[in-house]
Amino acid sequence: MPPRPSSPLITLLTDFGLKDHFVGLMKGVIAAIAPRARVIDITHEIEPYQLCQARFALAQSWPYFPKRTIHVVVVDPGVGTARRPILVQTANHRFIGPDNGIFSDLLDLPGTKVRHVANTKLFLPNVSATFHGRDIFAPVAAYLAAGVSASRVGPLVTDAIKLPPQRAVQTSERTWTGQIVSIDRFGNLITNLSLAELPDLTRRRFVLQLGSAHLSALAPNYASGLPGQAIAVAGSSGCLEIALNQDSAASRLGLGCGAPVEFALS
Amino acid sequence: MPPRPSSPLITLLTDFGLKDHFVGLMKGVIAAIAPRARVIDITHEIEPYQLCQARFALAQSWPYFPKRTIHVVVVDPGVGTARRPILVQTANHRFIGPDNGIFSDLLDLPGTKVRHVANTKLFLPNVSATFHGRDIFAPVAAYLAAGVSASRVGPLVTDAIKLPPQRAVQTSERTWTGQIVSIDRFGNLITNLSLAELPDLTRRRFVLQLGSAHLSALAPNYASGLPGQAIAVAGSSGCLEIALNQDSAASRLGLGCGAPVEFALS
Amino acid sequence: MPPRPSSPLITLLTDFGLKDHFVGLMKGVIAAIAPRARVIDITHEIEPYQLCQARFALAQSWPYFPKRTIHVVVVDPGVGTARRPILVQTANHRFIGPDNGIFSDLLDLPGTKVRHVANTKLFLPNVSATFHGRDIFAPVAAYLAAGVSASRVGPLVTDAIKLPPQRAVQTSERTWTGQIVSIDRFGNLITNLSLAELPDLTRRRFVLQLGSAHLSALAPNYASGLPGQAIAVAGSSGCLEIALNQDSAASRLGLGCGAPVEFALS
Repeated sequence: MPPRPSSPLITLLTDFGLKDHFVGLMKGVIAAIAPRARVIDITHEIEPYQLCQARFALAQSWPYFPKRTIHVVVVDPGVGTARRPILVQTANHRFIGPDNGIFSDLLDLPGTKVRHVANTKLFLPNVSATFHGRDIFAPVAAYLAAGVSASRVGPLVTDAIKLPPQRAVQTSERTWTGQIVSIDRFGNLITNLSLAELPDLTRRRFVLQLGSAHLSALAPNYASGLPGQAIAVAGSSGCLEIALNQDSAASRLGLGCGAPVEFALS
Repeated sequence: MPPRPSSPLITLLTDFGLKDHFVGLMKGVIAAIAPRARVIDITHEIEPYQLCQARFALAQSWPYFPKRTIHVVVVDPGVGTARRPILVQTANHRFIGPDNGIFSDLLDLPGTKVRHVANTKLFLPNVSATFHGRDIFAPVAAYLAAGVSASRVGPLVTDAIKLPPQRAVQTSERTWTGQIVSIDRFGNLITNLSLAELPDLTRRRFVLQLGSAHLSALAPNYASGLPGQAIAVAGSSGCLEIALNQDSAASRLGLGCGAPVEFALS
Repeated sequence: MPPRPSSPLITLLTDFGLKDHFVGLMKGVIAAIAPRARVIDITHEIEPYQLCQARFALAQSWPYFPKRTIHVVVVDPGVGTARRPILVQTANHRFIGPDNGIFSDLLDLPGTKVRHVANTKLFLPNVSATFHGRDIFAPVAAYLAAGVSASRVGPLVTDAIKLPPQRAVQTSERTWTGQIVSIDRFGNLITNLSLAELPDLTRRRFVLQLGSAHLSALAPNYASGLPGQAIAVAGSSGCLEIALNQDSAASRLGLGCGAPVEFALS
């Protein structure tokens, strides 16, 4: 592989879906401004307006991308209102999107700076009231990818909206209260119980309660469950997941995003 | 950004969906012929055979792409019949697809030329009766991206199929009759009433009637509607849209593509 | 087109869907290791765990890709169990995925070699029990794309899992028994009756029976069917397909993947 610089990388994470032309159009805007930029879709199937799901997907994804990647996140129920577009600069990545709390988890990272995206010279000439993905976020990301410096985007601000962290709460020495923060395509229920904050569950029994299900031990993998039996698995996200072998735990248990989870060490 | 030429750009707009391998296969054919071409998906989720929806998505998208982009459009109920494949050359873009009216809106642009795609040397060796996207449209687009001149594709023709324009009709000094031409993922109903052809609606009241709904003023953005209340919004497409704040107007009003819309200035 | 080498190509074929961030994350891992690699999605909408459908999509797709393409296939109900990850090297392509039979159709190609993917230095540092697409398959594919030689991936093996071929069986001089192996987005039913193994059906009548339908002649294209009438078509896959003009044969006939098909020459 010859030692020339790789193309700048932009990721897209939205609730626009793939049924419409919206995502393709954003890529056209980017290609016109930064022809060498490469674009990777994180997902466009966030449930419309579900900030919670978008925060989870973003937190799971961005650390795996190369340094200097620009992440565009557009889940934006307030498009066209007074909510600001912002640029969040962490040590090695940049994030562009609406100031609605979607970047909450980044604000406390060391060295993070936030800018109000205010330089209209970096927008498309006519900004609509309904599609800032095309008119503001895509072109600003493309200009950054093309080498425009962050300081030209707009002034630093210190009052970006910050929502509570997406973490379970320890309620006593041995108990935690959490919730389901995402459901994947297979119907696995992903909790916000971080394995890194719990003792080694491969050696310890527990009671995990959600809906009508009670689980008491960690299964080594998805395939180890009996048909119809819910199992607790150490998920790839680093959190406890509830799964059914080759079936949907979400459908069988009738649970969704936000459902409460109680966890107690035995 | 160093001053070397960017890779040629090809867009894809089809009703193939993403469930099957069809789109990936077209990209493989393109990569084998034009390794440096970049491919952007506009959408592959056009409802099967819905030319109307494809025309709208194409009209909304292509002007945002860089000059010299090659747009492949395959919504093709007549695949395998005598309908011709055509290449439409506008001043700065090229379009490849079936001659079924999908390119109607381009034919009157100044300088547009149409060619019958007839040079079988640019096709895959075995052309199937059912998948011209793979066998004809993808390879011809790739050869154009790789530098083959348009004149080698086939002879000029002047009888490409032209459908009526997708615009509302003014029926008196103050009244227009239009229709819903698209429904986006959020359930917003997009009409063909072009704001550029109407007086400034932020200063003027009107009656917009569709199904059981009567709207009389323009809302500044999606978020300004009360729960359950349909609002008229200046859409990002430049047309009037009917929306419900964080809900689906299409579902609530029970309306779909083709539904008539009556508009009268007060 | 200047004569510099094109970027290495990686394809992805999974049952991960596009709702989650899984596919985007794999592309991030690839971009971090092999910045110049290009990634093409074959499809991510294989029904969860359906090896049959994945084998069909793979067989239909890979021959159209350029030489030296690396194909990553992750349909993996046994993730986290003892099943091995493998690398299959054919004459001109490479394939990475679980050793669960998904590559059965490649094992008998002349010159095919199989390696156990065992070099953990090519994996991500922490391999989860549930997401080998991210932790093993994506990084190994990326290292290959970046120039790491196949021999460094792991030792040759000769006992890769081999499932029966996906072909119809000739049961007498004039009769074949097959099945539906895929259903496309349009609801067309794709059989495993290969046209290359049958006499020229444009000149010969036959009886094709599936469910309640009896077909007796080949239609020249999808558009030639009367409304509501099932027709047999020479599909783009090289196999017989059952279609309904502008309607879903699968829904109308109530048939799915695995449904038996009886074929007899008249």
